[in-house]
Amino acid sequence: MKRRIGILTSGGDCPGLNACIRGVARASYSLFDTEIIGIQDGYAGLISGDYREMKQSDFSGILTLGGTILGTRRTPFRNMRVIEDDNVDKVKAMKENYKKMRLDCLVTLGGNGTHKTANLLSEEGLNVIGLPKTIDNDIWGTDVTFGFHTAVDIATDVIDRIHTTAASHGRCMVIEIMGNKAGWLTLYSGIAGGADVILLPEIPYDPKAVAKAIERRAEAGKDFSIVAIAEGAMTQKEAKMKKKERLAFRQETGFNGAANRLAAELQQMVGVEARAVIPGHVQRGGTPSAYDRMLSTIFGVHAAQLIADGNYGQAVAMIGNQVGHNPLSEVAGKTKFVPDDAQAVKAARAMGISFGE
Amino acid sequence: MKRRIGILTSGGDCPGLNACIRGVARASYSLFDTEIIGIQDGYAGLISGDYREMKQSDFSGILTLGGTILGTRRTPFRNMRVIEDDNVDKVKAMKENYKKMRLDCLVTLGGNGTHKTANLLSEEGLNVIGLPKTIDNDIWGTDVTFGFHTAVDIATDVIDRIHTTAASHGRCMVIEIMGNKAGWLTLYSGIAGGADVILLPEIPYDPKAVAKAIERRAEAGKDFSIVAIAEGAMTQKEAKMKKKERLAFRQETGFNGAANRLAAELQQMVGVEARAVIPGHVQRGGTPSAYDRMLSTIFGVHAAQLIADGNYGQAVAMIGNQVGHNPLSEVAGKTKFVPDDAQAVKAARAMGISFGE
Amino acid sequence: MKRRIGILTSGGDCPGLNACIRGVARASYSLFDTEIIGIQDGYAGLISGDYREMKQSDFSGILTLGGTILGTRRTPFRNMRVIEDDNVDKVKAMKENYKKMRLDCLVTLGGNGTHKTANLLSEEGLNVIGLPKTIDNDIWGTDVTFGFHTAVDIATDVIDRIHTTAASHGRCMVIEIMGNKAGWLTLYSGIAGGADVILLPEIPYDPKAVAKAIERRAEAGKDFSIVAIAEGAMTQKEAKMKKKERLAFRQETGFNGAANRLAAELQQMVGVEARAVIPGHVQRGGTPSAYDRMLSTIFGVHAAQLIADGNYGQAVAMIGNQVGHNPLSEVAGKTKFVPDDAQAVKAARAMGISFGE
Amino acid sequence: MKRRIGILTSGGDCPGLNACIRGVARASYSLFDTEIIGIQDGYAGLISGDYREMKQSDFSGILTLGGTILGTRRTPFRNMRVIEDDNVDKVKAMKENYKKMRLDCLVTLGGNGTHKTANLLSEEGLNVIGLPKTIDNDIWGTDVTFGFHTAVDIATDVIDRIHTTAASHGRCMVIEIMGNKAGWLTLYSGIAGGADVILLPEIPYDPKAVAKAIERRAEAGKDFSIVAIAEGAMTQKEAKMKKKERLAFRQETGFNGAANRLAAELQQMVGVEARAVIPGHVQRGGTPSAYDRMLSTIFGVHAAQLIADGNYGQAVAMIGNQVGHNPLSEVAGKTKFVPDDAQAVKAARAMGISFGE
Repeated sequence: MKRRIGILTSGGDCPGLNACIRGVARASYSLFDTEIIGIQDGYAGLISGDYREMKQSDFSGILTLGGTILGTRRTPFRNMRVIEDDNVDKVKAMKENYKKMRLDCLVTLGGNGTHKTANLLSEEGLNVIGLPKTIDNDIWGTDVTFGFHTAVDIATDVIDRIHTTAASHGRCMVIEIMGNKAGWLTLYSGIAGGADVILLPEIPYDPKAVAKAIERRAEAGKDFSIVAIAEGAMTQKEAKMKKKERLAFRQETGFNGAANRLAAELQQMVGVEARAVIPGHVQRGGTPSAYDRMLSTIFGVHAAQLIADGNYGQAVAMIGNQVGHNPLSEVAGKTKFVPDDAQAVKAARAMGISFGE
Repeated sequence: MKRRIGILTSGGDCPGLNACIRGVARASYSLFDTEIIGIQDGYAGLISGDYREMKQSDFSGILTLGGTILGTRRTPFRNMRVIEDDNVDKVKAMKENYKKMRLDCLVTLGGNGTHKTANLLSEEGLNVIGLPKTIDNDIWGTDVTFGFHTAVDIATDVIDRIHTTAASHGRCMVIEIMGNKAGWLTLYSGIAGGADVILLPEIPYDPKAVAKAIERRAEAGKDFSIVAIAEGAMTQKEAKMKKKERLAFRQETGFNGAANRLAAELQQMVGVEARAVIPGHVQRGGTPSAYDRMLSTIFGVHAAQLIADGNYGQAVAMIGNQVGHNPLSEVAGKTKFVPDDAQAVKAARAMGISFGE
Repeated sequence: MKRRIGILTSGGDCPGLNACIRGVARASYSLFDTEIIGIQDGYAGLISGDYREMKQSDFSGILTLGGTILGTRRTPFRNMRVIEDDNVDKVKAMKENYKKMRLDCLVTLGGNGTHKTANLLSEEGLNVIGLPKTIDNDIWGTDVTFGFHTAVDIATDVIDRIHTTAASHGRCMVIEIMGNKAGWLTLYSGIAGGADVILLPEIPYDPKAVAKAIERRAEAGKDFSIVAIAEGAMTQKEAKMKKKERLAFRQETGFNGAANRLAAELQQMVGVEARAVIPGHVQRGGTPSAYDRMLSTIFGVHAAQLIADGNYGQAVAMIGNQVGHNPLSEVAGKTKFVPDDAQAVKAARAMGISFGE
Repeated sequence: MKRRIGILTSGGDCPGLNACIRGVARASYSLFDTEIIGIQDGYAGLISGDYREMKQSDFSGILTLGGTILGTRRTPFRNMRVIEDDNVDKVKAMKENYKKMRLDCLVTLGGNGTHKTANLLSEEGLNVIGLPKTIDNDIWGTDVTFGFHTAVDIATDVIDRIHTTAASHGRCMVIEIMGNKAGWLTLYSGIAGGADVILLPEIPYDPKAVAKAIERRAEAGKDFSIVAIAEGAMTQKEAKMKKKERLAFRQETGFNGAANRLAAELQQMVGVEARAVIPGHVQRGGTPSAYDRMLSTIFGVHAAQLIADGNYGQAVAMIGNQVGHNPLSEVAGKTKFVPDDAQAVKAARAMGISFGE
């Protein structure tokens, strides 16, 4: 019996999407009789019925390719907890198109938002398997997500390049790193790039403590500093505000983004020449690293094996270095933040790196 | 007789500075009896008398090193045409320190501003040799400056990574590229990165023409576009304004920088999802490319040979692929812009790349 | 009380050595009163008494530096099981120099050979801590060694570049990958590089099975193939021979190395144009990847914490993603081979990648 | 009137082939009414009649792609000077297929061998335009060929990585670099990689002089050396032999290739630990550098403009930094060797780099 598998990629672009799609496809073709249907632009294509039957050759030569051959869009639901009228229609459309495609299983590649919708569809009776994609590394239940280590490589390369400018000019460079509300990417690239100060959303900072860390360096004869700040970082003062209040407060200050704000503040407080660097989308594009190609492949193959076993409603994960899976219902809606006792945080503290506390 | 050579690096950080310093040093040590004095932080160190005698081993292992072992600062003169009182003092201080160091020659590594000051010192009777460093490639009289091709590599890598995001999300990505008032860096990386629209300071653009180029792509079935815009690019409307007027006009629009402004405009005009990416300082740091190591080395060696010949007051240059030199007095104060008939512009036009005209 | 710590790096060059040294040093300086003694060229320097007191600034700026600032040599003992007369003298010399340096602890960075000697010295009563360095990833008791993932990156980049030549010329390219007697490096880079055939020391291969895999590709319309072969790979026939016999057999065939031998054989068996590529030492040099900088740092910091706790005789390790340690006596003399049910092997098999069985 | 253009790529794989094909295609589509026919596997496809009509979309997304979408084979003629009977048939077949495809022009991308055949076909009355592709940079009449600078980047990266191993182990590393009979690639990557000795085919070397250079470094306290040797390098003794004699002499010594031979000799002469590294095909594959994408594009566009002008029988070239062309008849059969007074040779000599003389 032929199994018909729909695949879609959802949420932000991320290295390893194509490698993972290839893993699902190659293992499926090899393990059982398969027909693969590519759904265009994530859930948007599932809602509108934009899909095509894929050929085996479509998955050739895509291992190293950045982006996604299926296209992607940000999740179509703003608020998944409350299923509003409009969302009900979307869910209905997705179920109908699932049926129309005569799918045996839907494989979704995405982050937390994607998993939430995947779980919703699973609860609605569809066979769904979720694959953990995000440069933010913030998916609950898995040691690591694919895309993360490539982003760490890119962000570290940015810090390396900025390092020489900082040192040559005797400047304080404030580099804003992606990661949404989690600090993983900033933490890892900060340590790998030799940052002097690392500021994470999980550890609200005091600008005075940052200033002090820079001054201590100056006293030790080092006239330059590297600050790695997460896009989601906030001051201790901001952390006490409600979200709305915080946004208003930020708008007042007139600075766009975490790095610009802090650079201006440091320039004033320390008197040092401080500059913000915001590499932005560079961190999420391009060819996946060797690590991510391997990880995406293992994840993709595992999804095919779950399909072979008819074991649906699962989120593929790396658990204690072994590929495995958690029920979608258990991981949906949760976020994996950097715990205060993360070994990388502890190691950084032991080396005297400041978290701005 | 021992020759005492002072070396300084001035202006923005740039890949190849250390490789070039090493070229000057190694060839000097090999060609004649040499004492090299490293002047700290560019002209600032020459003014304040911050320098040290270097050892031969100081130049070992620095070929691949980003930044500059001598430190650098932006040029100390805001306006070199009018030598104000304060500047006169600075010139006096530089001449005195030159004497105090008992220099036979001062070698300066820098861009247009650095060359201007070098020429001034030369006119004041000092023996000066200038080396053409800048990622902007805008120094008059030389085919190419060192640092430029490394910056092209970095900017192209940025465009490559952004490309996959643009394609996967069906977005228009507007990438702001450095280069000061010249478009070389944007032109080269734009073509190498496969940009669809390239906007240079030398060719003022019409936002409507850019919008049209994006729409033409959409009509041809391509739902994404890459726009490479120089930081110094301006609209045809802005080009007609005086500088002051232009700055006021820009402040009104409320957007910070060329890319943010254009992205907002395109989003409104075309209805496409447009995003700005501003890689910033990443473009000027890090290890020099093979090309720039070679070029810096050849330039540095040529400077040593000019010293051996006692041929001072020269700006080292690549002229028709052969290393040579121009009188500092001939190049100082001039800028090499992208001519409208540059072969890269002509090639881009022939391929249908839009310059927003 | 000041603690005096000796550090040495031993065995083959490996990315991350300096990052790890820096981790030990920065955490030691930060956690307790420290004096660090750098021992030159591994155990050779410990035997001959070639060492120097280091300054805190010696550890600045080395995070990204390839190689080792302490120098390294291959292990000084050919056969550690039988301590011959000569070795006894060496051990005696090492103990004496340890005393002469007034060390509180010796930190060794190295692979299996280094760990063996470290354990020997520990059994002789010295305070020793071992750090797991090798691109081969074959150290018992740790999930991963530092240097490994950088080597995977390099080997994967080699396969990527060879890929285009293979595809453009319709050739079979046989790439020989390092790893000593373990297949980790070949396995990971083989999968990440999209190899069609992967040959490991742990899974003896049949050249006919390799030929068949290539022919199957040809039948499917693909006129090129990539074979990733470990330097330690052997045929099923060779695997049955004793070591001496095998070496003699190989000498007869007249081919130098695993890749050359197989390429010649494939050319004859399949009639395809087959070429060997042997990137060699490229795989072990250069700046460490972000992953390895992080890992080396965490390892180094952990060593400092063991010293702070006076917990000696330990081999630092990553155990289930958490940094920890095993008694040196438990890991010395063991090798971590690729198990037949390694998840990467299983994933590769599920995708139809041939192991030449 | 529609112009039918045949394109083929011939000779060894080389970065920039696809970028150049894209340049020809995009400019042709833009400049005149065009039909492009892709000829498979170089002249082999022209002889056998293996070709296909291309669509405009075939040239999309190939700018960064390594290899060639048209496939390539080594030149079909062993000896073009004497057109043997068999060759006559091949020429006849090529002319017939040219006619059968109703071509207005044949565009060939290749090196010296390709240009020779292109000229032959031009003399036979076909409209031919040649594009200068080779990592060897040895094509007469052009400043530079595309593929060369990417190969310089790769070879330099190899030397960089080997550098850390050499320094850490105190070894002499002998790196064999491609380039056929010309030394350009070794010269450029040798200088960019900081080699201590550079050995080119154009400057026969004395092993004793190489040994002396290494000993001089040892005397200056540097216990490691980097030797960059061209695959075509020869000793002064070998240079005096006839080709046949030289091959026999080499076979006697039992060493395979220039680097292995020299490493063994140095190990014996100097007593240093010497190792050969032969990166091989890595130097010719993968994505083209920004420089080569630009160069290939400009070359490709110029070919389209020559077609627009009906100016056939030309070899596209970069002449004094301006794209132009030479008659195929003038460049065919000539090789551009490194002249003894090349500026890079002179600069290297001035810095004390040894050429083994």
